[in-house]
Amino acid sequence: MHILVLNGPNLNLLGTREPEVYGHTTLADIEASCQQTAQALEFDISFAQSNHEGALVDAIHAARGVSDGIVINAGAYTHTSLALRDAIAGVGLPVIELHISNTHAREAFRHHSYIAPVCLGVIQGFGAAGYPLALQAMMRHLTAETAK
Amino acid sequence: MHILVLNGPNLNLLGTREPEVYGHTTLADIEASCQQTAQALEFDISFAQSNHEGALVDAIHAARGVSDGIVINAGAYTHTSLALRDAIAGVGLPVIELHISNTHAREAFRHHSYIAPVCLGVIQGFGAAGYPLALQAMMRHLTAETAK
Amino acid sequence: MHILVLNGPNLNLLGTREPEVYGHTTLADIEASCQQTAQALEFDISFAQSNHEGALVDAIHAARGVSDGIVINAGAYTHTSLALRDAIAGVGLPVIELHISNTHAREAFRHHSYIAPVCLGVIQGFGAAGYPLALQAMMRHLTAETAK
Amino acid sequence: MHILVLNGPNLNLLGTREPEVYGHTTLADIEASCQQTAQALEFDISFAQSNHEGALVDAIHAARGVSDGIVINAGAYTHTSLALRDAIAGVGLPVIELHISNTHAREAFRHHSYIAPVCLGVIQGFGAAGYPLALQAMMRHLTAETAK
Amino acid sequence: MHILVLNGPNLNLLGTREPEVYGHTTLADIEASCQQTAQALEFDISFAQSNHEGALVDAIHAARGVSDGIVINAGAYTHTSLALRDAIAGVGLPVIELHISNTHAREAFRHHSYIAPVCLGVIQGFGAAGYPLALQAMMRHLTAETAK
Amino acid sequence: MHILVLNGPNLNLLGTREPEVYGHTTLADIEASCQQTAQALEFDISFAQSNHEGALVDAIHAARGVSDGIVINAGAYTHTSLALRDAIAGVGLPVIELHISNTHAREAFRHHSYIAPVCLGVIQGFGAAGYPLALQAMMRHLTAETAK
Amino acid sequence: MHILVLNGPNLNLLGTREPEVYGHTTLADIEASCQQTAQALEFDISFAQSNHEGALVDAIHAARGVSDGIVINAGAYTHTSLALRDAIAGVGLPVIELHISNTHAREAFRHHSYIAPVCLGVIQGFGAAGYPLALQAMMRHLTAETAK
Amino acid sequence: MHILVLNGPNLNLLGTREPEVYGHTTLADIEASCQQTAQALEFDISFAQSNHEGALVDAIHAARGVSDGIVINAGAYTHTSLALRDAIAGVGLPVIELHISNTHAREAFRHHSYIAPVCLGVIQGFGAAGYPLALQAMMRHLTAETAK
Amino acid sequence: MHILVLNGPNLNLLGTREPEVYGHTTLADIEASCQQTAQALEFDISFAQSNHEGALVDAIHAARGVSDGIVINAGAYTHTSLALRDAIAGVGLPVIELHISNTHAREAFRHHSYIAPVCLGVIQGFGAAGYPLALQAMMRHLTAETAK
Amino acid sequence: MHILVLNGPNLNLLGTREPEVYGHTTLADIEASCQQTAQALEFDISFAQSNHEGALVDAIHAARGVSDGIVINAGAYTHTSLALRDAIAGVGLPVIELHISNTHAREAFRHHSYIAPVCLGVIQGFGAAGYPLALQAMMRHLTAETAK
Amino acid sequence: MHILVLNGPNLNLLGTREPEVYGHTTLADIEASCQQTAQALEFDISFAQSNHEGALVDAIHAARGVSDGIVINAGAYTHTSLALRDAIAGVGLPVIELHISNTHAREAFRHHSYIAPVCLGVIQGFGAAGYPLALQAMMRHLTAETAK
Amino acid sequence: MHILVLNGPNLNLLGTREPEVYGHTTLADIEASCQQTAQALEFDISFAQSNHEGALVDAIHAARGVSDGIVINAGAYTHTSLALRDAIAGVGLPVIELHISNTHAREAFRHHSYIAPVCLGVIQGFGAAGYPLALQAMMRHLTAETAK
Repeated sequence: MHILVLNGPNLNLLGTREPEVYGHTTLADIEASCQQTAQALEFDISFAQSNHEGALVDAIHAARGVSDGIVINAGAYTHTSLALRDAIAGVGLPVIELHISNTHAREAFRHHSYIAPVCLGVIQGFGAAGYPLALQAMMRHLTAETAK
Repeated sequence: MHILVLNGPNLNLLGTREPEVYGHTTLADIEASCQQTAQALEFDISFAQSNHEGALVDAIHAARGVSDGIVINAGAYTHTSLALRDAIAGVGLPVIELHISNTHAREAFRHHSYIAPVCLGVIQGFGAAGYPLALQAMMRHLTAETAK
Repeated sequence: MHILVLNGPNLNLLGTREPEVYGHTTLADIEASCQQTAQALEFDISFAQSNHEGALVDAIHAARGVSDGIVINAGAYTHTSLALRDAIAGVGLPVIELHISNTHAREAFRHHSYIAPVCLGVIQGFGAAGYPLALQAMMRHLTAETAK
Repeated sequence: MHILVLNGPNLNLLGTREPEVYGHTTLADIEASCQQTAQALEFDISFAQSNHEGALVDAIHAARGVSDGIVINAGAYTHTSLALRDAIAGVGLPVIELHISNTHAREAFRHHSYIAPVCLGVIQGFGAAGYPLALQAMMRHLTAETAK
Repeated sequence: MHILVLNGPNLNLLGTREPEVYGHTTLADIEASCQQTAQALEFDISFAQSNHEGALVDAIHAARGVSDGIVINAGAYTHTSLALRDAIAGVGLPVIELHISNTHAREAFRHHSYIAPVCLGVIQGFGAAGYPLALQAMMRHLTAETAK
Repeated sequence: MHILVLNGPNLNLLGTREPEVYGHTTLADIEASCQQTAQALEFDISFAQSNHEGALVDAIHAARGVSDGIVINAGAYTHTSLALRDAIAGVGLPVIELHISNTHAREAFRHHSYIAPVCLGVIQGFGAAGYPLALQAMMRHLTAETAK
Repeated sequence: MHILVLNGPNLNLLGTREPEVYGHTTLADIEASCQQTAQALEFDISFAQSNHEGALVDAIHAARGVSDGIVINAGAYTHTSLALRDAIAGVGLPVIELHISNTHAREAFRHHSYIAPVCLGVIQGFGAAGYPLALQAMMRHLTAETAK
Repeated sequence: MHILVLNGPNLNLLGTREPEVYGHTTLADIEASCQQTAQALEFDISFAQSNHEGALVDAIHAARGVSDGIVINAGAYTHTSLALRDAIAGVGLPVIELHISNTHAREAFRHHSYIAPVCLGVIQGFGAAGYPLALQAMMRHLTAETAK
Repeated sequence: MHILVLNGPNLNLLGTREPEVYGHTTLADIEASCQQTAQALEFDISFAQSNHEGALVDAIHAARGVSDGIVINAGAYTHTSLALRDAIAGVGLPVIELHISNTHAREAFRHHSYIAPVCLGVIQGFGAAGYPLALQAMMRHLTAETAK
Repeated sequence: MHILVLNGPNLNLLGTREPEVYGHTTLADIEASCQQTAQALEFDISFAQSNHEGALVDAIHAARGVSDGIVINAGAYTHTSLALRDAIAGVGLPVIELHISNTHAREAFRHHSYIAPVCLGVIQGFGAAGYPLALQAMMRHLTAETAK
Repeated sequence: MHILVLNGPNLNLLGTREPEVYGHTTLADIEASCQQTAQALEFDISFAQSNHEGALVDAIHAARGVSDGIVINAGAYTHTSLALRDAIAGVGLPVIELHISNTHAREAFRHHSYIAPVCLGVIQGFGAAGYPLALQAMMRHLTAETAK
Repeated sequence: MHILVLNGPNLNLLGTREPEVYGHTTLADIEASCQQTAQALEFDISFAQSNHEGALVDAIHAARGVSDGIVINAGAYTHTSLALRDAIAGVGLPVIELHISNTHAREAFRHHSYIAPVCLGVIQGFGAAGYPLALQAMMRHLTAETAK
């Protein structure tokens, strides 16, 4: 089993950008904790981050035949990118939408997600701890699917 | 540590109601799996379900001084009840909003949540497996808070 | 065959409340005329009325395995209750939505019904005479279904 | 007593057009069952159908002094024709709006009716069986009015 | 003369819930100050509070023949309950809508009131002091009406 | 000089339809008073009325090469007909929009006119007296244009 | 009989302001042509113009007991002033709304009039020629009223 | 202590304007009853009324250093004037918004207030009796503030 | 193979109406070029044009059993006619929506099409040259369907 | 060259009103710094401030033939005054819209400007420093125009 | 003559992505059929595809001086990219908007195109066959332009 | 002191693209005039332009620790890019939004800016002259901040 963890625009700033909203954990910290979860639950994992909408679309395409599922924090593109939505629907992999903050408690334009309707589910508001939770949720889903 | 798992309207029908949307797991099955999580993570747990908006408000009030956190699946009241929102904001406990289905993939009137802005976070779309995930997320939050 | 006639909030006031809108017939008068229709068309009938949204949800749940169809005048909850909609969709019984007045000729907020899309059909604007019409419509539907 | 049954655009296709929505009954079948109701309830009846908005307006005008009430299935003009609304309001006859399907369970643009606010009431969702129900409702109304 | 003071959802938490919005006065304190006003202005008074929409509807119905006027703080139901509106319109008693906070200075969804159009008037933003003001306003109204 | 006076749906009912809105003057009365104006101001005049949107479009087309201007009371089609708008724009004649009642003092759906933006001007609210005023306005316009 | 002709903001610029929209006629020219109409139809007339909303309200108030009707070109205040609307409704005089240009053929924010619903009627799009037409319309109305 | 009572557009017409909405009490009557309240509660009072938005802004500015609070019935400017809102926010005095009628029971454009969010509270629907109530509410507020 | 080319309101004016928008080609020119395409691609063709919505509905009905596909330029009815939409959906023939101009580059009310969702596809903006393109597209579709 | 600096409602309070939004600089300070800029860039300057919409309109009219350009901070009238917009468009002078604060970072009703579309440009968010910038921008524009 | 065929996000997946919506034809198949059309109609052709909005903008810029027209399937960027719109308007080349599916028969957010208003025309709903049609339409347009 | 001047999509076309909107000045001309301002005001400056949203986000990130402020003309991304907004908010540098044209005088979709609320201020409508103005405004801001 292989899971891709994909981070979108501005998430490379994590730990330094608006810490009152996003906390002090860096993206490297998050990837390290994901690695631990991968080892514990015995699956392979890889990471990608980009500020380019097109690069995220490319990464989702490239996951076909390589990954069994994707955990995506699409950042601001969550609310503006139909191209990401089409990419997710197009590759046919299970995808979990993740946000570090609770977007419903923020500005109105962050309440709508273009990608949620084509994702398996959503986890948000738990800070960096959301990533291991999402990986766990994905593994349960993949295992259950495989068991069918 | 004590966590209240609160289920709202029509969730007593689980397993028999629209199984193509909600699956075949019953509410009793869910409560059993929550009990297992509680034992594994060593916290106390109790359950309540009601089809009455007012009874859910009462239950949230009653959790003050008893529970350290609430996992709520408010069902249809998620989208129509300001009274639940005020109750959650009023008791000052951390609350996680949970949905069995991915509400963003359903009718437009299920895309808006009155309670999400006053909750810690949201987990949805993972079927019955969402409950143990939410309990885990709550325990991490409570432990982290306590550790501060 | 058994049909449940369910009346929602403020319908206990019938005959005394805003008679220029709802007429002088009381709820007891209506139930009596429904009884006559039940005898004439040879089916069993029972009645319930509540001002509580949750109690109406409970009543719909309780109809499973007891009633073959429901005629509901959900009153003001027609326009605000998703919980009723989910209950109707959840129990899988044929339901007819009924209103004494023609809601389209009244305030704009009475023009939208949350429950209509999950009901078999709608009858409204005929005063108390709408109840026997709805029972007749339900019996034709149940007979036709049975005949298949 | 005389009642006019008026059918609007595309209803001449009944029985052949989108049977999964409208059933297999033809307009001739419906008119035959209306005749039976007229004989049973002892009133005169006549029929008209047109795909032309203006012809429907003309037919409503022509009913003055001839008919005591109108049952109208205005089809798609229900949602777009103010001229029909003005015609109904203008002739001062009681009119019942009828739909074969439950329009509230279909596309959003079928949820609003321009004519409902000037009609006596609405019956919809009961297939071809709605016509005899509407005739019955009209006769009760006319009899009650006469009795005053 | 008898006036009913009716408090809606979450007002039982007064004094402990979000004191920066609602102050430190408890519901018992408010009822005591209302009693003083009742004695000073020489009218009878009774109190009810419920978190259940249906229970509030029941209480309004029960006031017929008992109370001459109602002062209602409907809390969150102000913004979501058509059933309360219909109950107020149905019993035909003068009703004053009261809010402890100035709802216009809060979230947008608190700016609209379903019940205001069927109430005599509105008093809001004066904290607990609004209750005696409302009782005074009601007594002036009742006295003026009686004097006619 | 020749002016066409074109009346739309339901205006054939004038004098008998909703007299509290439209008055007791008949369409024949209006045409007679228009004739008088035509004689006084020395221009030719002709009349047409139809309840059919398409017939009104045809009449506007037919006016090319025959009439120098059109006074149109498009009735309900004012608010729903783009075809009339295109016909007016297409023939390139000056057109005055006229209404017997003040549509801005009526239902919201009568506040918008599809044809006003392609008309010379609008006269409304003066009852039957609006027709001679419109003819006068048209003659002034045509005379001024000719004088250039 | 006395009629007040009231002109609102920026109409003092007439003849020099945006002549492609408003023409080259000045306000003085318009008042002169109104004087001619007044002499021809034998009524008294007076004029006022102000760029101040409050001054227009004052002028309408002052017309009580002095004028029998008002012709108002409220300019931009047509679309923004509720105070003018209340003034017109408050003095109980017949008022005709007039515009030099056809506002429906201009920006969307000029399509809505706050004062139209409380006016007798509207005349617009005929340039300076609209003023004599409006005076004529007012005289017909006043004569007809007097004749009753 | 000094309180300014400020009345906006058209309130000078009180007692003569639309008495079915605003009653027969004149502005002089209201000021007299306010004087009585001022004597009874021992505070100074002054009055101003204007139909000019700018004059009301000026009056609010002038109250700084003179008045301790303002009771304002801004009339139609309530719904259209941001300048009044900024003036109220700018001078930093407690202000109570007052309306003679219950604006929520009237036209939709009277349901929104630009000034309410920067006022202490709102009293409306009690006719002329609202003024003494507002003065009382203001005095309680000022006394409580002073007591702190 | 037989294809019906159906033209809607005002298209009879082609070549003379607003040539800056629609060009100088007449409807006869278009039909001649369509005839050429029909000969080249070896299919039968017929033409109809009407300004009457109902006549267009009738023509679509009449195409059943006669034509294999329809190319429709519904003109202004594109944006207002649900009856046309239902007719297209009802007869079950492949239909191509065509416009001479690019409606998206014109007024906002021309951006929405009621019939597009029930058509095979849309071709617009290519002037009279769009007709042969549409016929070609229809023949490819019919041939491909037949080949299955 | 002469430039008019026009300040609207509440700007006379500058330096004392809501300093956290508008800073501590007074209007006199701003006019002094504008004088310095005028001397440095060698142009004449004059100032006006009013809380009256009509007075601002008058001032803009009066600038014709006197000033070569206007810098306007219309305050709250920016968002509500069509009369100002028409005045600016009417006099045909270049006008620069200026705001001390960044209105886009404030309440939603401050995001829309009625006057911006008829202004040369907008400068906002730079506090009192915006005035000299605007004068500089105006001089560059006037010089460039003159140079043509 | 040279035409650029530009494909946007996710179109590289064609033939494998959601074949029930987009069919089984690959992008290579489409380019081959375009080559055939180019040979038949004797023009030069080149192709580009990118998932990056910026790369598509770059490609449009690069077409200046190289291509005589562009056929663009902008995929999801059709509905979200103003940058593409500005690029198309900026280079001044004729552009045809193409979609494989009929976007009007899909989700509401696919009904609006940011680029359509600056394109020559639109072709959609004909599957892969739309490309040769678009090339043909472009050649006719270019030839006609050249012929002028 | 170092300021970054960042230009977004299509601005590389300046001087050749739609000169009636954007003028004939090229991006190189603008950068030269910015250099002059930098020399005059004695600060360092660098330039970047990209048509890629992601590249602009990257450039803003890269400015941390290098630049003291950013002047950004985000072009079309102003209206569609939340990622740019988050980048600006994330790096915590003062940013000035600049537009060559007055966007409020153009299409409605250019009236809203996603980045304005997180910028220091906005300068628009002054053509290429806006860049030196923005640099001057930034220097004043940085100097004032430093002086604190």
